[in-house]
Parts: sequence; C-alpha cells; structure tokens
Amino acid sequence: MQIIGTSVPRIDGLSKVCGKIQYVDDLYLRDMLYAKIYRSTIANGRVKAIDVSEAKRLPGVEAVITFEDVPAHTFPTAGHPFSLDPTHQDVADHSILTGRIRYWGDEIAAVVAVDELTAEKALKLIKVEYDEYPSVLTLSDALDESAVEIHQGSNNIIKTTSYKFGELEQSFVECDYILEGQYKTSIVQHCAMENHSAFAYTDQRGRIIIYSSTQIPHICRRIVGQALGMPWGMIRVVKPYVGGGFGSKQDVIVEPIAAFLSTKVAGRPVKLELTREETFIATRTRHAMEYTLKSGVAKDGTLLARKANIFSINGAYASHGHSIASKCAATIRVQYKQPAIECSATTVYANLPAAGAMRGYGIPQVNFALECHMDDLAYELGIDPIDIRLKNLHEAGFVDPLSGVKAHTNGVRECIRKGRELINWTNKRSCYKEQSGNKRRGVGMACFYYGTATYPVGQEIAGARIVLNQDGSVQLQIGATEIGQGSDTVFAQMAAETIGITFDKVHIITEQDTDITPFDTGSYASRQTYVSGAAVKKAAEEIKAKILQRASSMTDIPLQTLDTDMDWIVYKHSREKIKPLSDVALDSYYNLKTAAPITADVSNLTRTNAFAYGCTFAEVEVDILTGKVAVMELYNIHDSGKIINPQLAEGQVHGGVSMGLGYALYEQLLFDSKSGKPLNNNLLDYKLMTASDTPEIGVAFVETYDPTAPFGNKALGEPPAISPAPAIRNAILNATGVKINEVPMTPQRLFEAFKEAGLI
Amino acid sequence: MQIIGTSVPRIDGLSKVCGKIQYVDDLYLRDMLYAKIYRSTIANGRVKAIDVSEAKRLPGVEAVITFEDVPAHTFPTAGHPFSLDPTHQDVADHSILTGRIRYWGDEIAAVVAVDELTAEKALKLIKVEYDEYPSVLTLSDALDESAVEIHQGSNNIIKTTSYKFGELEQSFVECDYILEGQYKTSIVQHCAMENHSAFAYTDQRGRIIIYSSTQIPHICRRIVGQALGMPWGMIRVVKPYVGGGFGSKQDVIVEPIAAFLSTKVAGRPVKLELTREETFIATRTRHAMEYTLKSGVAKDGTLLARKANIFSINGAYASHGHSIASKCAATIRVQYKQPAIECSATTVYANLPAAGAMRGYGIPQVNFALECHMDDLAYELGIDPIDIRLKNLHEAGFVDPLSGVKAHTNGVRECIRKGRELINWTNKRSCYKEQSGNKRRGVGMACFYYGTATYPVGQEIAGARIVLNQDGSVQLQIGATEIGQGSDTVFAQMAAETIGITFDKVHIITEQDTDITPFDTGSYASRQTYVSGAAVKKAAEEIKAKILQRASSMTDIPLQTLDTDMDWIVYKHSREKIKPLSDVALDSYYNLKTAAPITADVSNLTRTNAFAYGCTFAEVEVDILTGKVAVMELYNIHDSGKIINPQLAEGQVHGGVSMGLGYALYEQLLFDSKSGKPLNNNLLDYKLMTASDTPEIGVAFVETYDPTAPFGNKALGEPPAISPAPAIRNAILNATGVKINEVPMTPQRLFEAFKEAGLI
Repeated sequence: MQIIGTSVPRIDGLSKVCGKIQYVDDLYLRDMLYAKIYRSTIANGRVKAIDVSEAKRLPGVEAVITFEDVPAHTFPTAGHPFSLDPTHQDVADHSILTGRIRYWGDEIAAVVAVDELTAEKALKLIKVEYDEYPSVLTLSDALDESAVEIHQGSNNIIKTTSYKFGELEQSFVECDYILEGQYKTSIVQHCAMENHSAFAYTDQRGRIIIYSSTQIPHICRRIVGQALGMPWGMIRVVKPYVGGGFGSKQDVIVEPIAAFLSTKVAGRPVKLELTREETFIATRTRHAMEYTLKSGVAKDGTLLARKANIFSINGAYASHGHSIASKCAATIRVQYKQPAIECSATTVYANLPAAGAMRGYGIPQVNFALECHMDDLAYELGIDPIDIRLKNLHEAGFVDPLSGVKAHTNGVRECIRKGRELINWTNKRSCYKEQSGNKRRGVGMACFYYGTATYPVGQEIAGARIVLNQDGSVQLQIGATEIGQGSDTVFAQMAAETIGITFDKVHIITEQDTDITPFDTGSYASRQTYVSGAAVKKAAEEIKAKILQRASSMTDIPLQTLDTDMDWIVYKHSREKIKPLSDVALDSYYNLKTAAPITADVSNLTRTNAFAYGCTFAEVEVDILTGKVAVMELYNIHDSGKIINPQLAEGQVHGGVSMGLGYALYEQLLFDSKSGKPLNNNLLDYKLMTASDTPEIGVAFVETYDPTAPFGNKALGEPPAISPAPAIRNAILNATGVKINEVPMTPQRLFEAFKEAGLI
Repeated sequence: MQIIGTSVPRIDGLSKVCGKIQYVDDLYLRDMLYAKIYRSTIANGRVKAIDVSEAKRLPGVEAVITFEDVPAHTFPTAGHPFSLDPTHQDVADHSILTGRIRYWGDEIAAVVAVDELTAEKALKLIKVEYDEYPSVLTLSDALDESAVEIHQGSNNIIKTTSYKFGELEQSFVECDYILEGQYKTSIVQHCAMENHSAFAYTDQRGRIIIYSSTQIPHICRRIVGQALGMPWGMIRVVKPYVGGGFGSKQDVIVEPIAAFLSTKVAGRPVKLELTREETFIATRTRHAMEYTLKSGVAKDGTLLARKANIFSINGAYASHGHSIASKCAATIRVQYKQPAIECSATTVYANLPAAGAMRGYGIPQVNFALECHMDDLAYELGIDPIDIRLKNLHEAGFVDPLSGVKAHTNGVRECIRKGRELINWTNKRSCYKEQSGNKRRGVGMACFYYGTATYPVGQEIAGARIVLNQDGSVQLQIGATEIGQGSDTVFAQMAAETIGITFDKVHIITEQDTDITPFDTGSYASRQTYVSGAAVKKAAEEIKAKILQRASSMTDIPLQTLDTDMDWIVYKHSREKIKPLSDVALDSYYNLKTAAPITADVSNLTRTNAFAYGCTFAEVEVDILTGKVAVMELYNIHDSGKIINPQLAEGQVHGGVSMGLGYALYEQLLFDSKSGKPLNNNLLDYKLMTASDTPEIGVAFVETYDPTAPFGNKALGEPPAISPAPAIRNAILNATGVKINEVPMTPQRLFEAFKEAGLI
C-alpha cells in the first residue's frame, strides 16, 4: 500500500488554520430569526400556569410558542439507526416543549425574535407558575418506591437486562479469594468546541431545510420527521463543518425545535444556537454510573467467577436508553475470561440532564470499575497487575457468546508488552515499593476493549459515491460525517489507494446533505474507517474495474494484464506504464459511441465487527498533603488494526487521552443536591483540561490486520479516552496504597481518602 | 400516462413568486471582492501603452491585472461538448484579457476592489494608448482583401462550407419560373432578465470554486480549466437559479476572468457582474446574416432547384464558430424538398460584439430568408402561400442525407391546417385582396423545422440520479439545468410517471454543482426533455425495477405480476393495491439482512434526433403613413411531439413568440458605422418588447409521438421564436404587396419601402 499507512496531511488542515472553514454559525440567511428557549427553574414538577402575553408584545418578537402549542406526541432523540422492530426502537419520551418538568432547565417555551438580544429580553417577560415535586437526583432517590415517577408508568426504570454463564454460586465456593468492590463515576460533558447550533427554514413546497452541527444528518432527518409528524422525505438536513461532537451531537436536540418554530413564522429561517451554559445541561452528558463487582479467583489470579451489578443514571430523558448500560455489561464478558459470570444492568431516570452517547459509549465508566477492580485483585493477591491481566484477558479467536462476534485479532498482549517497556514498568514498580514522604510516585496501567461500530446491536449501513473527472481526478462523496476527527482525509486515502491515483487527485465533498449525500447513519461508534471505509473501498473498486475495462477496450490489451498505479494504466506484471489514466477518463466522457462517465454509487451493509484493544501506562506523583496528582509519564498503546494515517491517529490518541485525564482528575458537572440546579455549567467553573494542563502523551500502535475490515483497520476514535482514568487510579494505588474508587480523583477526594487511610 | 401531459404547477413557481429563489447576485461570501473590466474605446487596434499605476494606488483596490498578466494561450468559449477530435474542437481564439482590440468594449484590464464603486473609480484612472486600425463592421468590409485581419491568418473568414445535391444548372434550365431574393437579419441580443454574473474563489487546496449564472456548468468547468491551464477537476462550478439565458449563457464569458482574478488576490472571492450595457456587447448576440436565395419552380409551385448563399457575421470572436451558419445551411435542405440544391455558408469575423448561440441557433435567421422567399414565390406565381408549402415540405420518413437523421414524425401539415382554421385564413385572404386607404390588413404565415438537440453534430450525453427516501418519495438530481424554462418541473413529472409515484413525491435538486451533479452538458438546443429526459427515464425505470424486486421478495408475489401505481405496489392485471410503496422503501433502508437504499445513477448517450415542426399564422394591420405594424391576431402551432406539461409549454410559446415579434418589428443593436461604438446597448434605447407591447398569442399543439424520445416529446424551447418574423413579413406583403426583406421591420424601414413602392 502506497497511500494507506502514510501521514498525508489533513485534507482540511490548511482551510481550518486559515479560518476558511464554515460552521453553522458562519452561515447566514436573509430574513433569519433567532430563537431562545425558556427553561424551567425547577428540576421536577409541572407548569401550572404560563403567561407569554407580555413577551409577545415586545417589539421584535415574531412568535412565542409554549408546550401547549407543540405536537402532542413524543419522539426519540437518540442517533441510532431506525429499526423495523418496534421493540428495538428508541424510547420515545421527548416532546418539542414540555409542561412536565423533568430537569432544571427543561424546555417550556420558545421565543423567536429578530435578534438574540430581543429574544433574551422576551424570555424575561414570560411568567410561569409551577407545581413542584421533590427532586429525584440520585440512584437511591430513583429506586425509592415513593419517588415521583419522572415518566409515567416507568417506575423511574428505563430498563434492566442481565446475562449469566456458568454456575456462579458454585464457582464462588471454589475460589481461593473473593473480592468485592464498589466504583462510581460522575457526570461529565463533552465540551465540544462548537456548541449545539442549527437553523431551519421551510420552502414553498413545505419542505423543511435544516443546517445543523450534527454527527448524524440522515438520522436527524428521520427524527425531525418523527418529531413534527411529517414524512421523512419532507425534511432535508445539511451538515457543514462541525466543531466536535464526541457523541453529544449524536442526539437530535435543537433541530426539531428550530424546524417547528420555522413553521410558525411563515417558513422564515429560525436559528437556535445554545449557549455554553445550555449545552452543558440541555444536550447530553456522560452517564454517572455505580458498579458493584464481586470476583472470585484462584491463588494465581485466574478469574473463576464474577458478579457485576451496574446502575446507570440516565437523567430526565431516555436518549440512548439502556443501550449504554448494556454495552457496559457486555464489556465485562468480552474483556476477560470468566468461567462463571452473572451481570445485570439497570438504567434509571433522574431529574438531571439527559445522558447520552459520549466518546467510549459507557466503556470509560465500566472500564474504570473493571480495571480498578483487577488492580485491587492483584494488589490483594500480591500479583503484578500486568500478570493478572495477561492470565485472564481474552485472546484472538474469542467469540462473544451473546453477540456471536468473533475477535479475529487481539493485540492487547503486545500492547501491554510495549507499554511495560516504554514506561520502564519493572524497574519503577520495584523502586516505588517502599515510599514515604509527601510526594510519592507510582506506576499503573489499565487495558481495554472497544467494539468497532455497533453490529449486531445496530444496523451498519454506509454509502459512497465516486465520479471520475476528465483529468483522472475523482470526487468522493460519503454519507459519513467529518466532525473534526479527520475522516475525510482517511477516506480520500482509501479512495486513492484503491483506485490507483495520487492522493491529491481525490476531491472530497465534506458537506453532508440528506438530499444529495449517499445514505449513512453518521459518525459514532468509531465506525467511520471500518463501516464507511468499506463503502468507500467498494465504490473505489468499482471505479477501478470500470477504468481498466475501458483501458482494455481502448488498447486491446487483455483486462487481466492491466492495473492502475499512481495515475497510470500499467502492465500488472511489470508495472510498465501504458497510458495516463486521464486518457481513459477523457474517453469515458467524450467517446462519441461509448461515452459514459465512470461513476460508482454504492451502499454497503457491514455485518461484522472487529474488536479494538489497548492499554494505558501512567506514572504519577501524588502530593499526599494536598491530594494533587501530577501525571509524569503516560503512554497509550493501541491495537486499532492497520493504521491508515499515523499522524492523524496520534492526534486522535492525544485528544482522547486528554479527555480521559480530565475524566480521571478534574471534570464533574455538579448540581445542588436539593433543587437539582446545575452549579458549574460553564467553562470557568467546570474544570476542562487545557493544553497547558496536559502532560506529554506517548503513543504507540500495535498493528494487527483485521480480515473483516476494508484495510485491516479497527476503531480508534473512542478507544483513547477509555483507559487513562483507571491507569492513573492504579498508579495512585501503587504510589500510596490507597484505592480511590470514584472519578474524578480530585485533591479534595484524595485528601479525604489519605486522611482516612492514615497517610495524613 | 397520469402525470405526463398534465399541467402540474411549476415546481419552483411559488418560490419565484415569493422572491425566495436565490440567483448568483443573492449570494454573498465573506471577504468578497468586486471586479470591473477596463474595456477598449476603439473597435480595432492594439494597445500601445497601458498605465495602471494610479489605479493600483487607489485605496480599496486589491489588484489591477492587464492583458500582459494573463496566460498567453487562447481558449474557446462556446458551450459545446468537448471533442476528442482536434478538428472538431471549438475555435480557441479568446484570451482572458487582450491587448489586440477586436471590438469596441474588448477586455484590456481588470480591477479588483473592495466594492464596485471603488473598482469603477479605478477604471477611470487607467490610461491606455492605442494603435487604431480601420474598423471592419460589415460583410463587405470583412471580405475586402485589404481589410486588417482581426485574427491573424484568418483572412477574416472563420470557415466556409457547402453542400450540393442534384444537377443545379440543368434543373434551373428546366424550371418554369426562377426567383432570386436577398434577405438580411440584424444583430439582436438575448436580454435575459439576469445579466451575466459569477464569482470565484480558490480554496486552500488550490481548487477554484465558481458560482455562475450559466446554462452549462459542466462545460464551464472544462473551459475555465482550459483558460487557466489547470486540470479540469481542479475547477468546481455551481449554478444557482438562473434568470434566463436564451443561449447567451451557453458561452463561458465572465467565469475565466473571475477565476483568474481570484488567484491574484490570494484566493479571495471575486465577483464579476456585468452591467446591462456590458451584457449587450461583451457577452453574445444573434448573428447578423445575409442570404441570397435563388429558386426555380414548376408552374404549380413545385420546387425544382435552389441555390443558397449564406453569410454570417460573427463579430470579434468565433464563439460557436461556424456551427450556427452550418445549421442554417442544413435547415434549407431539411425543411423543403429540393431535387437540386447548392448551398454555401461562410462565417466571417468583424469588429463587432461576438455572436453566439441564441434561441433558435441560426434558424430564426434562415427561416426569415426562406419563408419570405417561399411567400415571394407564391406571390409571383399567384399561388396560396399555404399551397406552395404543402407541395414542397418534407414528410415523416424523410432522412437528412447528410446527417442521416430520420424524421420519424412530422406534424407540420396538421399544424398548418390548424393555423389556417384558427386565423380564418381563406376568408381573410379573400377579404384582404383589394385594399386601399392608409390602414391595410393582411394575413401571413410561415412554417419551420427545428432539430431537437445536436446529434449527430454534437455528442448528447446526460446524467440523472434518483434516491428513494424512506417515505416513498425520491430525490431527483440531474445535470441538466433549469434556467427558467421549467425543466425541473417536467423532469419531476417524468420521474413520478415512470416510478409510479405522485408528483409531490419528487424532490428535485435544482442547483447544479459539478462536484456533485451527474454529468450533463447543460441547457441548450432544446435538448432537455429529449436528451436529459431520457436519462431521467432510465434512472426512474431502474428505481421502479428495484422497488418491484424488493416488493416481490417481501411479499413472495411473482415479480412479473407486480406494478407500481401512485405510491402503491399493485397487481399489474387488476391494479389491486398490495402495500404502500413506502413500506418497500422503509425495508430497503432498515432490513437487517438486505438493507440497500434504492438508488439509480445513470448516464445516457442519445444517438438519435427528432425534428420538431410548426408554423405561425399572423394577421397585421399596417399603417401605411407611419409604417407602424399592429399584430391583430397571432397563432403559433407546434408539433413538439407529446406535450409533457401543456401549461408550461404554452408559456414557452408565449415567451418565444414575444421574442420573435421583437425580432420582427423592433429590436436591433446599432453601432456607429465608422467607429463601431455601440449606440443603444441599454434597455431604454434598445426596443425590447414589454408585456404591454405583446398581443394575445394563440397557441396550439399537434401531438405526434416520436419513437426515439423518452415520452414521444420533441424540442419546444427554441421553436416558438422562429417563425413569427417571416409570418408577419408575409402578412405585411399580403396587406400591402410590399416585400420587406430585412428585420426589424421598423416604421422607418416600412415607410421608405412604401414610398419606394408608391404607396405614399
């Protein structure tokens, strides 16, 4: 391969650096109006009375709409493919606006005005009276039988699922050692650079056109159709450049409101851009979760039995519903061999912002619990944490008994070997054995598994279209969405490699437009290179075949002896050049008898999955007196199969690790424990890591070649964010002997734990 | 057929009426700059010296570019498909800017500034010294051996062609009567509502993106590539709504300049919008032509011999070159049976605005000469003008001996029969036989032929793409361009009819974008319904076949018993409904095992042609003393095959007839006979017909069914403009006995002729 595997520069790099890229907020339409949402100032209750008359009278206000004006039916918001099976469809528990308040900030009314300031002013003129109910903010609140039901008939439980293999009770009896641990994760937010933003207008044939910062334009189209009760083809969604999503834009949040409002102002464009404060609470968050893990092992550390209870706190609306908790449950069985296992997962409602997809889709949470717990086992047994993992990790060839997915490759052991070397594990572990003083060092590690894409839980369909131009260059159109991760660049590499043209000959259409773009469910589940890449490859192969066919007709050289190579038609055996590929392209357009531009328009349904693996090795220095943790060294080593673009891949790992470090040490969205009012939904009080807070991040890859992937590649987008938190926690354990079982591991929390452990 | 043949409302009608349609001028890009052209104030000569230093110093001026800065090579501008055969390629005689002045207004330099006003001011600061040569403004000037060559080596002749059948000299000897006549047409301009306008910018990968009011985005891409010496794939052309073209936007005029200028201002968008004054002279005009026709007939009016000499005055640049004169020559042999014929056509350069394609592509000119001449023959022989035509017109089955194209249908006789009835021909002809007084009435008629599309002279390729949405609606994307003629509506009808869905289920993408849109050479030669319609039908048939296949799999009902009907899957024999088509659509997206959205992406090469026919019947009242002509009644009757949308078709005829009436009576672009300076290049002095000048226009259709067409249809866009001028001229002859052999038939011209004839 000549282009795959090389670090070609990002196709959009220069444009971004030059500020030429256009995001939703850079676009403006004539007659644009601006919407603002009136949000509840209670977390649980009901609107008793609402008076918008004064707001309506404010000059410049074009419309004020309340929950009483929106369609009565509810709709789902999760960016999942639609399912023909009603039992597999997402929970439809959302309304465009609501009078039943479910979290502090819930959407009661909307104002449309000629500018944002007028809309803001109008919000202040709206008067609401509430019936307030006690807030349900914690897991125990939610499970309390006397709690008010947040959604009628739900009992505050979205779903409980469980699985079971082997004879758990009997296995526990046979164990040498049993350990039980409890682990908690907290609510964090994606904090994409670009807040949620969309505008919508209605054309003269009644179609609604939406420009949105979304990861999932085709799904967005469907959900807006469902929300407004319109045929899906009457909705058109355009996605310009997106300033990051990380899963928060895998829900459809602002689009239905903007679309509905446009229908109320004679079709004029209505823009709804959330503020940062709104984005924090009114989009999606990462689920807070609580884990109880009980493991039984043999003396040598071999896992014999495990029982896992998972509770996921979903907030006010179901969004992705139970599927994230479900993925957490699956992770436990897929990562380690456990002859006997019982696992149950429960997702509950609470009067908190709705949680949804976020980089890792639950796995950072379960991985924190699981990898802390593995270290705790090693710690108690006096085994090297690496050894207990090597003993129990699954190997290549493993078939998940529930999903039927087979791990054709598994490079986790090689990742661990690399990480151990990079961080000088053995030496440091022995050095840090007996420490005293207030600054103590430790090394820790954690490994992870991540499934690429969603098969067989979700349908994995992708489309690609390629047109060969007269000069031998191509346009590549994909439904898969560039949201900052660099997918456009790797798709262009795939197309160039497969067709046999140079990289600069691929002109990619970066914008997705549901009217024009091949169908693809979008950017999530680290599916792009694997699922959408397969469609790109299929289309490119079709283009190449058509090129060679025409070349053969033009030259009378037998088809099977021809090949393409860097813009040339060559002899397959000798690579001798025959004619420029552009000659064939020109003929395809202008041959008087046989002209037919060479195009391919394919859809591909991927019915496989490939497991990505990896680990984090971290060294920390813990300040015992202040509880501050400094990350001294950190390595993320990934088996993501073949790496398409090493430089972009490294960038992905840097970003993911940074997110993982924030999760480990700093980030937490806080709420008043009584009212449910958010306390730090802004970037001043919410402690997001900045570049200057981020340590050097070491990156290495173990390149396996997955046979089910278009180019041997597996997921890389989400994996880097998974294992930093437990690795750091385990390094703290190594440094201090104290088990911190909850993220973020803030100085306050560490200080208290150290005090309890008698270190202070 | 349920949708084809019905007058569904224009798909874009409401949007247009509401002012929601966006033309180039409605679009604005951040950092936009504005260009203005410095034009010559002589018609023939050379720039001796140019000083732009003061212009460059004007604040707000970003660049001043002269002919010395542009690529040295020349390029063609005609909107023809490219040809692999160098001898068939268009004449490459144009530069982006030039120091060799060829018409009054030629493009010497360009200013780019922050606004139009500053650019205008800067133009005034440019100083140019000329070497002036004598102007070549008339045919005799051009043919004068001592004339300065406008293009080196041309001898001022672009090309001469001729053809010959039978023994002409001998046939003339055998004739009962021989008539020779000379006919002249003058220069007119398209006067599309929207002037030529484009803007271009360069992206960070070096690609040039152009938004243009063009009929031919894909050809524009190629020509800009040629002009700038760039690979064609590096150019992207987007066509928003276009406010009329009529052929003037079938040349590539403003785009190469805008594109080149953008590369000189670091890629910033540069907009070049011509004023009306510039559009008149610096885009394209209709060729002035001179005809000598000599015809020999038998006593009964049967044509035996004809000799035709055609001279076409092309102006400063070749543009479409000789192909328009060539089409004129062909028309003579294709319209009438002439056992012996010799025809020659010559196209010459002159120091006048370049002539190019204009509605009818030369046929209005040749038709004026030919139909005047036919009436003159009838007049001299004392035969009814209808009878001489019926005797000599070709019939269905005629095969053009030079092109090999066969007229499968020919409804001209039926058109004449209808017209004769509508205008009450026989009665009026007899009433108007002997008139005196100053107001005299007459009826006249003229018939025409028009070839649909350009096969076999040009390549006729078209593309269409259809995607079936989940709700059973479709997106239809075509490369063919809506330029106001209503093609989007008829394509949507074709798609709906063929797929078997209701009209409102077709969502057409009206904008063409060469990066996205299927390849199609564009809108010209009345080719859309015939050539591009064939592609739409082919794509729609593929969609229908895929729908029925899936429906059959879903229901186990044999494929051959299934059909579609207005959004339903039905039994073919009974039309009994089986399931909504949208169920099949939904399955195509979400069936877990077989999902594959139903799409079609086709290209179609049309290698046939179909002749459209028709006639005009007109009644006039001539004011002998003032020379004013009032059109009392007028009927255009068309054989355009099957009429797809009667209301839109009628609209086309109204517009075309209005253009034909202006051509007949009022319009002429005038130049100073010495300097070549344009005298009336504005809409005040150039007498374009307004709605209030236009009489009631009667329209009728004779629906033949052409077997080579997708739906039996033939050309209609251009035909209506062809025969009004000779019909009116012949009505004047009928009223007054005076032969006016030159358009426009202005009061001045008639007054002089009447004086000469002794009527005054």
